[in-house]
Amino acid sequence: MKKIVKPNKSDWDEILKRPTQTVSDIEAVVNSIFKEVKADGDTVIKKYTAQFDKVALDSLSVTETEIETANGNVSDALKQAINLAKSNIEKFHSAQKTTKVAIETMPGVDCWQEKRPIQKVGLYIPGGTAPLFSTILMLAIPAKLAGCKEIVLCTPPYTNGEINPAILYTAQLCGVTQIFKVGGIQAIAGMTFGTESIPKVYKIFGPGNQYVTVAKQLATKYGVAIDMPAGPSELLVVADDSANPAFVASDLLSQAEHGVDSQVILVSTSEKLIGAVEEEIENQIKELPRAEIARKSIGNSKLILVKNDEEALGLINEYGPEHYIVCVENESYYLENTMNAGSVFIGNYTPESAGDYASGTNHTLPTNGYAKQYSGVNLDSFMKSMTFQKISEKGIQGIGSAIELMAEAEGLQAHKNAVTLRLKSLK
Amino acid sequence: MKKIVKPNKSDWDEILKRPTQTVSDIEAVVNSIFKEVKADGDTVIKKYTAQFDKVALDSLSVTETEIETANGNVSDALKQAINLAKSNIEKFHSAQKTTKVAIETMPGVDCWQEKRPIQKVGLYIPGGTAPLFSTILMLAIPAKLAGCKEIVLCTPPYTNGEINPAILYTAQLCGVTQIFKVGGIQAIAGMTFGTESIPKVYKIFGPGNQYVTVAKQLATKYGVAIDMPAGPSELLVVADDSANPAFVASDLLSQAEHGVDSQVILVSTSEKLIGAVEEEIENQIKELPRAEIARKSIGNSKLILVKNDEEALGLINEYGPEHYIVCVENESYYLENTMNAGSVFIGNYTPESAGDYASGTNHTLPTNGYAKQYSGVNLDSFMKSMTFQKISEKGIQGIGSAIELMAEAEGLQAHKNAVTLRLKSLK
Repeated sequence: MKKIVKPNKSDWDEILKRPTQTVSDIEAVVNSIFKEVKADGDTVIKKYTAQFDKVALDSLSVTETEIETANGNVSDALKQAINLAKSNIEKFHSAQKTTKVAIETMPGVDCWQEKRPIQKVGLYIPGGTAPLFSTILMLAIPAKLAGCKEIVLCTPPYTNGEINPAILYTAQLCGVTQIFKVGGIQAIAGMTFGTESIPKVYKIFGPGNQYVTVAKQLATKYGVAIDMPAGPSELLVVADDSANPAFVASDLLSQAEHGVDSQVILVSTSEKLIGAVEEEIENQIKELPRAEIARKSIGNSKLILVKNDEEALGLINEYGPEHYIVCVENESYYLENTMNAGSVFIGNYTPESAGDYASGTNHTLPTNGYAKQYSGVNLDSFMKSMTFQKISEKGIQGIGSAIELMAEAEGLQAHKNAVTLRLKSLK
Repeated sequence: MKKIVKPNKSDWDEILKRPTQTVSDIEAVVNSIFKEVKADGDTVIKKYTAQFDKVALDSLSVTETEIETANGNVSDALKQAINLAKSNIEKFHSAQKTTKVAIETMPGVDCWQEKRPIQKVGLYIPGGTAPLFSTILMLAIPAKLAGCKEIVLCTPPYTNGEINPAILYTAQLCGVTQIFKVGGIQAIAGMTFGTESIPKVYKIFGPGNQYVTVAKQLATKYGVAIDMPAGPSELLVVADDSANPAFVASDLLSQAEHGVDSQVILVSTSEKLIGAVEEEIENQIKELPRAEIARKSIGNSKLILVKNDEEALGLINEYGPEHYIVCVENESYYLENTMNAGSVFIGNYTPESAGDYASGTNHTLPTNGYAKQYSGVNLDSFMKSMTFQKISEKGIQGIGSAIELMAEAEGLQAHKNAVTLRLKSLK
């Protein structure tokens, strides 16, 4: 890890730089697969599934029988853990429901706001060695609570044409309506345009590699919304001598094992704590099965010694971490004044992995500094707000002349006329 | 107007097609101006202001003196109208404030969600003949209520280097913190990268022509968020014999005068109403100063006679109108079952122009069918939600083993380890 001692503000930009991603070179591939899927649907999707996932499928759809079989192949212990996580995630996301906001802004002018579910959503769950069933919990539970009618899930099959049983178990548990054995660019293209098998959706959620990320960006050009722009995962810990160095090290490592481009940062006013954490990382990293990945991302990462809390806070707000652990005595100072962070974990007994799996908060969070302007996924991500208004005869008489004046000043006579006609009819 | 009688569902796609926009040919121009602004800041912005707005500026910033002068040049009547609109918009958007959502999902596992303001936002207000001060009300009022620290406004100057006084009056009234005489692509690029004068912002709001629209799309590639993708304005009216045909015609025309690519649609179960509205449009259109524009967009527009309410509703949800007037006896059926619309106007005395200016609702709304997945601008558009969690010793003992099991099943040993270490320390 790179150790940085009391950096000047002018160096922050450089210090807080994230591992860069180049996407322009893969845009051409993504563009061409999108065009093919748009033109030829399932045929093209099967072609790329054969090419990338090394399996020839007759049908892209997961059957009821496959789901039943999967249910039998998940251990009871894991089922119980998933059910506990589901219960917590449901509680936290249900609590986010808002009621209709109604107000009479002037006598006879009633305005209200209501949220309604996005009717069709698509969830993308990556494949690979680690089956990310936890991401299904994080996406399908709020989709179901929001009332989305169609919840479509795409995930790449293994070379034998099967899907990990924990993924199928979790998907059916959380109310996913259709599951497809399709991954990568072709999955995003399928949900963007719709094919013979896969429905076109209005919004696509979920993580993925660089190809999936670029494909989701491209989907927005075709009128589909996405959860948020994606980047490598990251964790910033601010800690002082009240923090347990072994715990801090374990949190930094849990982030570092995600991928070689993950970034972890420790900010502290205590040189002693920094030294102790460094030592603990060395102790713990040896034991990890994914030590090689962790070592690479730890290599990109930073231990930053700062002068005081104020400087720490400035640096944190400038960075806008996705995951943010606060383990300091002066806790409330950090909590009140941090403006840019995705999800905040407080104190010695709150590891990031709690939020990744089971505490109830969502783990789909803004990376890459996007915490400055994007929310993590929450119940509202699956809804949109609509406004309504109803004006009575008395209402238009009260508000009419203001509208007439403003419309005229903007040079929009027909806008004025729509009011004038109504006012005349009431004379 | 094109009259369509009881169309088949298979023809809906064709009937509901919006006027198309081609953007690829202007992407090159936008890209190149972005690169120049990124490299050379104010110098480039001034160059393009000279080229596009035909004025050589020494300073891009609007001064206090200019704002004071503007205040003197807005009539008292218009000021009163603007103030009334401001009061209603404030009331409606204040009512949207949400409180902290806090829940103990399990004993000792406290999770909460808080919304915090986006610190720096940019508002773009187009120039041209019509000074859109109403859009400042719609963007700056919620930005201020949300608590955004920097509210930057860019708008193109007249050839004499001045800004319309109603724009300056409204901007200072609503708490805009800095105003710049910059328009078009160069304004969006300036707020994306920051220049010597213009601050870099985190999210850009506001309407504009095709160049501005493409520039906002490009801004998202550089890490800036935008309010929503834009398209031509549109209105769908559903009306029956309970509607006043003259009022309906005036609403359709108020939408039609926006631009030649505006789209207006009337859906009705009543042939009689459709005929009467058609006649009224002919009567009213002659009197409009913008009759030529209105005639062109009326040419693109449709009167659709449908079999029954159910078919009307299906068609409306498929279209997802930006503005949506409901003027029928069976009002509640439409209100309850419309899932996709930006803003809804109900009954004979609720013209669209009320929401455009003064009733309190926002007029920055999803066009182009985006009402299926995007909200119109509201208080939350200027905030992002952050989640927090604090787990006690007892909490981690309750939830720990579920996290361990799930992390292990996903192959993430370090995630498990962060919990195991803590559990061991408590034994």
